[in-house]
Amino acid sequence: MDSEYPLLSKINKPGDLKALKEEELPELCREIRSYLIENLSENPGHFASSMGAVDLIVALHYVFDTPHDRLVWDVGHQAYAHKILTGRKDDFKNHRTLGGISGFPSPLESDYDSFMAGHAGNSISAGLGMAIADKCTPGNENRKTVVVIGDASISGGLAFEGLNNASNHPNDLLIILNDNDMSIDNNVGGLHGYLSDLTTSAGYNKIRNKLALYLKKKGVLTEPRRRAIIRFSNSVKSLVSKKQNIFEGLNIRYFGPIDGHDVRKLVKVLRDIKEMHGPRLLHLYTVKGKGYKPAEEDPTIWHAPGRFDPDTGERICKTEGVKIPLWQEVFGETLVEIARKNERVMGITAAMPTGTSLNQLFEEMPERAFDVGISEGHAVTFAGGLAAAGKLPFVAIYSSFLQRAYDNIIHDVAIQGLPVTFCVDRAGLVGEDGVTHHGFFDLAYLNCVPGLTIASPSDAEMLRNLMHTSLNLGKPFAIRYPRGKSSKLDKTGAPEILSPGKGRIAHEGKDSKVAILTIGPILANALKASEILSMEGIETDIYDMIWMKPIDEELLNKIAAKYEKIVTVEDGILAGGFGSVVNKVINTYEPHPEIVNLGIPDEWIMHGDIPHLQSKCGFDAEGIVRAVKGEVKNN
Amino acid sequence: MDSEYPLLSKINKPGDLKALKEEELPELCREIRSYLIENLSENPGHFASSMGAVDLIVALHYVFDTPHDRLVWDVGHQAYAHKILTGRKDDFKNHRTLGGISGFPSPLESDYDSFMAGHAGNSISAGLGMAIADKCTPGNENRKTVVVIGDASISGGLAFEGLNNASNHPNDLLIILNDNDMSIDNNVGGLHGYLSDLTTSAGYNKIRNKLALYLKKKGVLTEPRRRAIIRFSNSVKSLVSKKQNIFEGLNIRYFGPIDGHDVRKLVKVLRDIKEMHGPRLLHLYTVKGKGYKPAEEDPTIWHAPGRFDPDTGERICKTEGVKIPLWQEVFGETLVEIARKNERVMGITAAMPTGTSLNQLFEEMPERAFDVGISEGHAVTFAGGLAAAGKLPFVAIYSSFLQRAYDNIIHDVAIQGLPVTFCVDRAGLVGEDGVTHHGFFDLAYLNCVPGLTIASPSDAEMLRNLMHTSLNLGKPFAIRYPRGKSSKLDKTGAPEILSPGKGRIAHEGKDSKVAILTIGPILANALKASEILSMEGIETDIYDMIWMKPIDEELLNKIAAKYEKIVTVEDGILAGGFGSVVNKVINTYEPHPEIVNLGIPDEWIMHGDIPHLQSKCGFDAEGIVRAVKGEVKNN
Repeated sequence: MDSEYPLLSKINKPGDLKALKEEELPELCREIRSYLIENLSENPGHFASSMGAVDLIVALHYVFDTPHDRLVWDVGHQAYAHKILTGRKDDFKNHRTLGGISGFPSPLESDYDSFMAGHAGNSISAGLGMAIADKCTPGNENRKTVVVIGDASISGGLAFEGLNNASNHPNDLLIILNDNDMSIDNNVGGLHGYLSDLTTSAGYNKIRNKLALYLKKKGVLTEPRRRAIIRFSNSVKSLVSKKQNIFEGLNIRYFGPIDGHDVRKLVKVLRDIKEMHGPRLLHLYTVKGKGYKPAEEDPTIWHAPGRFDPDTGERICKTEGVKIPLWQEVFGETLVEIARKNERVMGITAAMPTGTSLNQLFEEMPERAFDVGISEGHAVTFAGGLAAAGKLPFVAIYSSFLQRAYDNIIHDVAIQGLPVTFCVDRAGLVGEDGVTHHGFFDLAYLNCVPGLTIASPSDAEMLRNLMHTSLNLGKPFAIRYPRGKSSKLDKTGAPEILSPGKGRIAHEGKDSKVAILTIGPILANALKASEILSMEGIETDIYDMIWMKPIDEELLNKIAAKYEKIVTVEDGILAGGFGSVVNKVINTYEPHPEIVNLGIPDEWIMHGDIPHLQSKCGFDAEGIVRAVKGEVKNN
Repeated sequence: MDSEYPLLSKINKPGDLKALKEEELPELCREIRSYLIENLSENPGHFASSMGAVDLIVALHYVFDTPHDRLVWDVGHQAYAHKILTGRKDDFKNHRTLGGISGFPSPLESDYDSFMAGHAGNSISAGLGMAIADKCTPGNENRKTVVVIGDASISGGLAFEGLNNASNHPNDLLIILNDNDMSIDNNVGGLHGYLSDLTTSAGYNKIRNKLALYLKKKGVLTEPRRRAIIRFSNSVKSLVSKKQNIFEGLNIRYFGPIDGHDVRKLVKVLRDIKEMHGPRLLHLYTVKGKGYKPAEEDPTIWHAPGRFDPDTGERICKTEGVKIPLWQEVFGETLVEIARKNERVMGITAAMPTGTSLNQLFEEMPERAFDVGISEGHAVTFAGGLAAAGKLPFVAIYSSFLQRAYDNIIHDVAIQGLPVTFCVDRAGLVGEDGVTHHGFFDLAYLNCVPGLTIASPSDAEMLRNLMHTSLNLGKPFAIRYPRGKSSKLDKTGAPEILSPGKGRIAHEGKDSKVAILTIGPILANALKASEILSMEGIETDIYDMIWMKPIDEELLNKIAAKYEKIVTVEDGILAGGFGSVVNKVINTYEPHPEIVNLGIPDEWIMHGDIPHLQSKCGFDAEGIVRAVKGEVKNN
């Protein structure tokens, strides 16, 4: 390592970094980028945004006294260089793997990670809390808080609430806007147009000077206040760029935009503004994938490219015989299919057109596809508005992000009974993205809302059928499916319109005394368990309940009467989940079968590959086998 | 009615309004205000904001073709005049009462109410959905959507997300900003300062002209584009007012500010901008309580003043012997008490300092009390930031509004195990505010989150004790309590530190075969039921479980072994609620007692007084009596 990374090899903590000369910093940035390429080509992760933030991260740790000074990341998959510089250089080889370090900054992992950074837009609010707390804590008055937020994150409502509150109480919060002109796909919204125009205000200095002279002469600038002059300069800038400075409008002092890849300039600017008082925003312009040509040229693909050849930039895709589509692809294709059939169908994503596969609708019918940016609340309420005006919107949002739209689901859709279909993507365990991204809670938090219909398909065909069924439903409907491979989809046949609240038997053993009840694709684990058990002479019947709400009470009644034991399996939190709904019905019977509920326990599950995590939670095939055999009890 | 209301008496629908001459409109506004005073002095409601919006509402229905043109209200307790003009004049006498019309606009009630309007900030997103839907629906291209939003609502993140998306797709949305310079208490945030400064830009026209000439001469304004000129004029306006035009920055055309009480001018301006294309914002300046002196002078008290003497403005308060404090008052007093004891304690409200009684902390320690405006998500994440920096924040938010901070609770507090105490106010049935404001869901949506502790006090003493207990807990803690009267609080004694997960027996009958298990103040209903039953010779024991999470399993085990029947009672939704947690433990016993769960069923509950609503849901004393007697079964 020493010869390849002469500077980086000497750095274990930010203190070591401070020992470098300023003129060595560009070389260190180059080494860190090489280290990122070397590691991420082998053990994949978020590549392009991390490459773009290297210079900023080096400058921050060079100028500020971390972890005493607090660094708050937003989303934080840009923060790999930060992990490398803060004692996790070697651990980085195993990042995102079971037992390895997380892919996101996490205070559970390091004191250098001041706050959890998995969901976008929380950094300003959290940083403001810290900055205000320090300001009124004896001894901490001079402790700094620096927030780094991207241009996509800052367009969310939570970030705006943070900005809007930043000037209310004394604090010296420094907000760094890392503006790479895109989020995971494209950036959207008025704010985005605003930011890009700000950066094209070349030559405004000349006009500024002339105007200043003129206005002074006319008596407009008689007040010799510093604040007024800053505002003045920003007003002129917005005049020339034909845009308004929103941050100044919110009483936050604005600096920039400056080149976020000139590490020495960054060091200078950060030193200049470090000791200033009051909330400030420094606007950097950076390039996603900086320092690696293929990534600079196609940052969307290189957001999380998987494994690749570091020399050629060729991405290494596993070859497979028959291509099994992802759940997302089945959703994307089917949405196009039903949009062709019904002109009222529309699709909405919150910044994830590629991740959700809504891009298929964007390609074919761009006027009926909407990317609202990282604004999950708006996405749902907007869908409510579309539905109130006669449309049939499908909102595809990841389960853990849909938590941000909970009140919108209740207030703007469910109470009014509007026909919005929630396509709850990345439901259940998500694997490497870990604790902030698992989609555990949706079944529990949705089931308690009156008027919702909730289902989960066990294969691709059923997802297609459920989506077609939603057209006939005329009320709010949530369909949940996980990340990863689905099953082969044959679209030649006509889709089947399913009956809400009707489960089905998925496997019948001979004289089974045990029934396994599942919802969604986790059925596969039950089928595997059933095979294992059968080889040991234990027969089981398996029911694919499909619908969480309404639950198939008729079928449950039959099951309650027929079996000695019931095992429920779900890829979701146990409290308030699928099992609890089954229990409620079964337990009204006397005598009733013994019930064991398998699912996510009442604890936080970290990152790792999904099979390992399922095993840890006890609902892999082996876990189900143990439950059937009586080695696992409820509670 | 005819003599008192010569114009209003002729109006049943907006069509009748259109028959009036323009010069009659001011008189109609006066009559509507009289009608509001006459009715609201008797049957109380939201007074001040409704008085302030009369002229706007008359102008809107005069100029637009409702309900074909869509009116979307935000929060909507300003919209009483709208109800009066749209066929609900007589029904208005019974608004907010059981079976009467709602206090908020509701599409369940009238076609004139385009969207649900109980929670602030949803109007722009919903209206945008409608405007875009109409734009691409043959025959509807020219249908208008008008959104009316207050200056407090527009400061929330959801409204910002709506604004940020308003220019993305072709639409002609008209947003009317009804700016009365305050929300329920005081308005806060950078945006508020921005709005008030905008209104003080007198004389900017003169300077604008001079500047325009100068800039044209210098070649800056050579492009003859209309858009550029609008931006230019707004830039100059912000230059003079020392503020930036945020709306123009988001690509929304800005008009105003104009006097929102000059109904004829409003009619003229609305006609002028009605047929314009693209998203537009019209900024009105209005006075809360307009037309009723006492309300104009003290709009906070007159937000919802209760009954009053219309002639003198004297508010009619019920007299009582011993004053029983509200739950909110107990919270407010205790927060001051513990803030005195522990300097790390801080208090946060989202725009409800009076409603939550956080104003007591504001008075005594303003530097440790925070009103973040209608920004529930920020409130919770900000509290997370405070806690991460060593503080002990208490966040007081109404249960139904806390739904907006669900992801913040999970991501920014619970995963990190930060010691934030959520004081979940207005939990359970809230009565007259109805379907959008009931706090049903909190127990269910919080219980599934790992690492949370959840409790509910049955009397004032216990709320005080729980708040003191939270100081020792060192982790996230939710305490829920309802609106309304608590019990007498004796603060002379030292508070008791309670043990999480320890319930207590609240009443012991003689050889009882039935146990009633409650959580929170609903215990009172159980005690009453027990008395009634006792008179009929049926003895019951009552357990006040206090803690939902952790639940007292030891106690439940004893209960499971001892009784023939268990009735659980909660002022919350049954699915995933307190009863379901009890069931889970009890049902592992064989044989176990019969269980009946009482609480909110799986349906929307409308407005009405709380005793009636409890009776409807079956958990008033009589409902509990029926359950104990076996007249009610589970499911």
